[in-house]
Amino acid sequence: MGASGNAGKAGYAMVSSLANFPGPVYAINPRAAAVGESILNLETKASVAELKGQVDLAVLTVPAQMVPEALEQCGEAGVTAAVICAGGFSESGDEGSALQQQAVHVATTHGIRLLGPNTSGFMNPRLGLFANFMPSVTTLSPGPVAVVAQSGGVNLALAFMLDHAGIGTSLSVGLGNGADVGFVEVLDHLANDPETTAVALHVEGVADGAALMDAVLRVSTRKPVIAIKVGKNDVGDFAKSHTGALTGSYEVTRAALSQAGAVVVDSLAELVDAVTALSTIRLQPHPGPGAAVITGQAGPGLILADALAEAGVPMPALHSETTAQLQQLLPALTYQRNPVDTGRPGGSFPAVARAVSEDPSIALTAVYALDEPGAFDPVAALGPLSGHVMFASGGPKNVLIQQRERLRELRIPMFHSPDALAHGVAAVVKDAQLQFAASQWPVRPAFGRGAILGSTLDESEGKRLIAEAGVQIPAGRTAANRQEAHAALEDLGGPLVVKVLDAAILHKADVGGVHTNIRTPDQLDVALDVIDRIPNRSSGRYLLERQAGYGVELIVGGVRDAAFGPVVALSLGGTDVEISNVSPQLRVAPLSRPAAIDMVLGLPPALLAGHRGSPPIDPEAVADILLAVSELLMTYSDITEVDLNPVRITAEGSIVLDALIICELQH
Amino acid sequence: MGASGNAGKAGYAMVSSLANFPGPVYAINPRAAAVGESILNLETKASVAELKGQVDLAVLTVPAQMVPEALEQCGEAGVTAAVICAGGFSESGDEGSALQQQAVHVATTHGIRLLGPNTSGFMNPRLGLFANFMPSVTTLSPGPVAVVAQSGGVNLALAFMLDHAGIGTSLSVGLGNGADVGFVEVLDHLANDPETTAVALHVEGVADGAALMDAVLRVSTRKPVIAIKVGKNDVGDFAKSHTGALTGSYEVTRAALSQAGAVVVDSLAELVDAVTALSTIRLQPHPGPGAAVITGQAGPGLILADALAEAGVPMPALHSETTAQLQQLLPALTYQRNPVDTGRPGGSFPAVARAVSEDPSIALTAVYALDEPGAFDPVAALGPLSGHVMFASGGPKNVLIQQRERLRELRIPMFHSPDALAHGVAAVVKDAQLQFAASQWPVRPAFGRGAILGSTLDESEGKRLIAEAGVQIPAGRTAANRQEAHAALEDLGGPLVVKVLDAAILHKADVGGVHTNIRTPDQLDVALDVIDRIPNRSSGRYLLERQAGYGVELIVGGVRDAAFGPVVALSLGGTDVEISNVSPQLRVAPLSRPAAIDMVLGLPPALLAGHRGSPPIDPEAVADILLAVSELLMTYSDITEVDLNPVRITAEGSIVLDALIICELQH
Repeated sequence: MGASGNAGKAGYAMVSSLANFPGPVYAINPRAAAVGESILNLETKASVAELKGQVDLAVLTVPAQMVPEALEQCGEAGVTAAVICAGGFSESGDEGSALQQQAVHVATTHGIRLLGPNTSGFMNPRLGLFANFMPSVTTLSPGPVAVVAQSGGVNLALAFMLDHAGIGTSLSVGLGNGADVGFVEVLDHLANDPETTAVALHVEGVADGAALMDAVLRVSTRKPVIAIKVGKNDVGDFAKSHTGALTGSYEVTRAALSQAGAVVVDSLAELVDAVTALSTIRLQPHPGPGAAVITGQAGPGLILADALAEAGVPMPALHSETTAQLQQLLPALTYQRNPVDTGRPGGSFPAVARAVSEDPSIALTAVYALDEPGAFDPVAALGPLSGHVMFASGGPKNVLIQQRERLRELRIPMFHSPDALAHGVAAVVKDAQLQFAASQWPVRPAFGRGAILGSTLDESEGKRLIAEAGVQIPAGRTAANRQEAHAALEDLGGPLVVKVLDAAILHKADVGGVHTNIRTPDQLDVALDVIDRIPNRSSGRYLLERQAGYGVELIVGGVRDAAFGPVVALSLGGTDVEISNVSPQLRVAPLSRPAAIDMVLGLPPALLAGHRGSPPIDPEAVADILLAVSELLMTYSDITEVDLNPVRITAEGSIVLDALIICELQH
Repeated sequence: MGASGNAGKAGYAMVSSLANFPGPVYAINPRAAAVGESILNLETKASVAELKGQVDLAVLTVPAQMVPEALEQCGEAGVTAAVICAGGFSESGDEGSALQQQAVHVATTHGIRLLGPNTSGFMNPRLGLFANFMPSVTTLSPGPVAVVAQSGGVNLALAFMLDHAGIGTSLSVGLGNGADVGFVEVLDHLANDPETTAVALHVEGVADGAALMDAVLRVSTRKPVIAIKVGKNDVGDFAKSHTGALTGSYEVTRAALSQAGAVVVDSLAELVDAVTALSTIRLQPHPGPGAAVITGQAGPGLILADALAEAGVPMPALHSETTAQLQQLLPALTYQRNPVDTGRPGGSFPAVARAVSEDPSIALTAVYALDEPGAFDPVAALGPLSGHVMFASGGPKNVLIQQRERLRELRIPMFHSPDALAHGVAAVVKDAQLQFAASQWPVRPAFGRGAILGSTLDESEGKRLIAEAGVQIPAGRTAANRQEAHAALEDLGGPLVVKVLDAAILHKADVGGVHTNIRTPDQLDVALDVIDRIPNRSSGRYLLERQAGYGVELIVGGVRDAAFGPVVALSLGGTDVEISNVSPQLRVAPLSRPAAIDMVLGLPPALLAGHRGSPPIDPEAVADILLAVSELLMTYSDITEVDLNPVRITAEGSIVLDALIICELQH
């Protein structure tokens, strides 16, 4: 609908794409139909009404304003699926949003499922169904990878990039505004699609994070999902103008996708490399599968090993039995550990590859060798290792492409550079790790359990709530007046930390509300004097606590993300946190204990080991705190923020020194 | 020499490569020559002696042990250039090193220049000269890019990757062990080679850093140099086993290459993208050339803009005159700032591209548009903007490759994905910035000026030396005993910092040698008591200084790198420096003032602006300190380390609170 005979118009381009479909396709164009003209050899009809009961899919290239009426006609003709290409809906302001609502209303009334609006469409090369107004899509080959892109343009860009890499697509969808069919619907289809062995996911913004996570999890338990999240940097309101969706929190979305089992990558090139690998190979779930490098040329092997180390891929030393075998197989001057440098590949290469690949520490072997016809045949050497080996080479393009095709048939992914191979290996290893982690991931309950905390807590109340979950807080007392404060000093003994106690004062230290090293009644009075001068206190209360020992400090936090709900964060404490460039560890709640421990182990190694005389960090103890925050966020649906800052790692344990729990009234 | 008739041998592969040379080529093989056999149709000779005076280049594929004798024969035959392919020289231990020395000695005696040993060779496609034992190199096309790779394998990998990207090579060299011809010789040749418009440089380890920097600088002032340094991560002693060169300091080498004007990239893929751009476009030197993004599809445009922002490319807002023009040219719903989203490209696209490209803030325009035959012709739209525009598209591979060729003739680089385009734009912008910086880079004097400091300084002496360069240190006194210490307290007034003064004690705080907040004689005595209990003091001296005000802390350091000589470093101070992910700013000395200021401006913005109540950082004041360290390292050739830790940014200025200057006796 909206078919046009004018080249250059989207309605012409769409017809030229659809004309490839082997089944019946009609071009709806009243003027052409009136004079019996065909468009690109397709039969024209004046209206979809003439095709009542015969149409499986309506593709609309009519302008936005005509969409509701066109859908009405579709509904009357018994159509149950439609693609809307036009822009000018929710991405363009209030008027467009109203138009989109109207279109969805018409569709719902008639039981029509919608793709779009504001998309170029979708492609299914195996069916010859190219419902996309970019006519060159008809050159795309069928293959095992599905693309689910939030943007119609990225869907096309990715489908072509995969095609260039010799990887065809099973289905390739641009969601556009996602007014009806969105991530969840397409992912659920793909989970059960036997033609699809891996899913490439492009995310700009997310409306319902929990639904997306659940859908990704349903796919990733069956086949690999590789995801890219756009919007790391602020590019003004351009993103908003595009799909109407805010790009949302970059880090939270990545953490959530990863938690749901998706391998999250940083660029389209990396996405293509990861998909090339994971559409062919998937390892068993494993917390840390070992990779080996075998190289025929030391220089590229060094680049490969460097890139794998950078990506955090475990490269275990080979067992002594393996190195003994290698010693027999390789010349004396070659490097025979991991990486294994064979020198110029010779007759022993297949045996070397087998020996390394069979090493009990090695789950995946990455092989690099330049094209040397006569000296080295990768198909013969690597074929027997299919499923546990990946390859990269350098040489004339046509030679490499031929090899790539032959190796692909043997289920051996092949790349054209050592760093592309490293991306592929890293993705396969990460997928195995995520599968392992996902097996420990509890079924997500609905957010919150309806309980209401009621109001923002003061520090003492917040700490008590945290302590009930088994987390250590300093021994302390609240005091309503000076007498009680002095009694607390006598009871607790020094040194104490003396603080103002007031839920309304969020930055106590900045207003003179925190005093350390208080040992004597005189020192206490000085501190209380300063606290009493703080303006606008809602009460005259103090908090007195025994001062904790030396140690590094962490921050454990909880927020309620607009898209993903409760999120637990672990980051560095101390004054340098804002400039440290160490990303916080984020997880969508509820946390499992292994996930909490994994967050702790993601801290910088120097910190974990005991930084500058601090005791080492006990992962179990910090995990307890993370789990307590997760539980708080899950229990009380009105908590919007938890800020345990700092948590100090002392010789006496991991102690929460301050706790802020903010509630917002619910409507 | 070492020519073989047995397929699979390197000596056979080499002959098959060399057979493509249009001039005379002879295969040296006594047995074949004896029976009058040719090898791959090349005339055989029993010895190079038979070709006396006729040989420009000897290529040796003989085993390592036979190399000195073969070179001897070459010398007697009047050969002045040779390639040695065999491994088993300095990369393999003492015996190999001796053999390499012997080979170099023979070559020097006869005036022969050597490439190798331990390399696959070199290629010059324009001359049809493929002196490489990988026979498929003969498929490489000539082009404008030179490859200088430390590894023979990486030379091949890169040459093929550039070929796949449609970029040919002018010369492509694998240095191997670089026993004679190394980076400097090849770079100096390329600086004057009219066929080369850009140089791709692969570095593993560097022996003479200053010579490398000078050679890179000589090239980069004339044509772009794009460099990759391998060895970010520790991959055991594999690197050492490879070229015999230690990979050396990754960060110092990158800083030095960048200082010499090379665009330093992180991966081979990025290298290819950067070379694709810079072999075609070079901007005028500029401290911050502005880039614009124009996109026909919002989704890929968002990825492009995100990647450019991540790479730190300035994307200034367009001038009001430009946006007024765009308003005339584009539909109302499109985004018309920077990025500019045209919506589906139509007839106005060329005018849009021209308007943006002519904006006075814009030096370079990056255009993305999917392939839409009939709707958009990139050659017509972008051709007039040649020199200031780069393009990327998605579509069928053969279509894109045809467009790429046509655009390349117009000097418009084209890429196949938005992130590859971002790499290209970032490289061109970086090159312009480095050209600008290099114009302010003083000519490097020889290291050191021969002056000798003599011995490691204690804190007071170190500070005095620093203060002489105009850098602020705290008001203070040294004291030889308690009486002098008390007199200093009376004189200076409190609060003081009281420290042990002893050049042999490097970590004063760890042994109880630093006491802050000393205001009274009693407090001073307590502090002195603790200091006096430090064992093994070489003297009984103290340092008393007025305590500096609050502020963030930096560390300014100097080291003497084995390859690059004196290096000045600026990093975060405080206890979190080891766990922060903020790389230190490094520059090889001597520093110019603009370079020093550039280092300061590389600190995290949150820190520069005044972190947590600290005064903002004054770039000029910190630059003074960096320049002082640079000057110290240049003046005294026996200083091995300078550690100004911390430098505190206070309301009273940037004050050096501790200074450690270590000297090592020279032999």
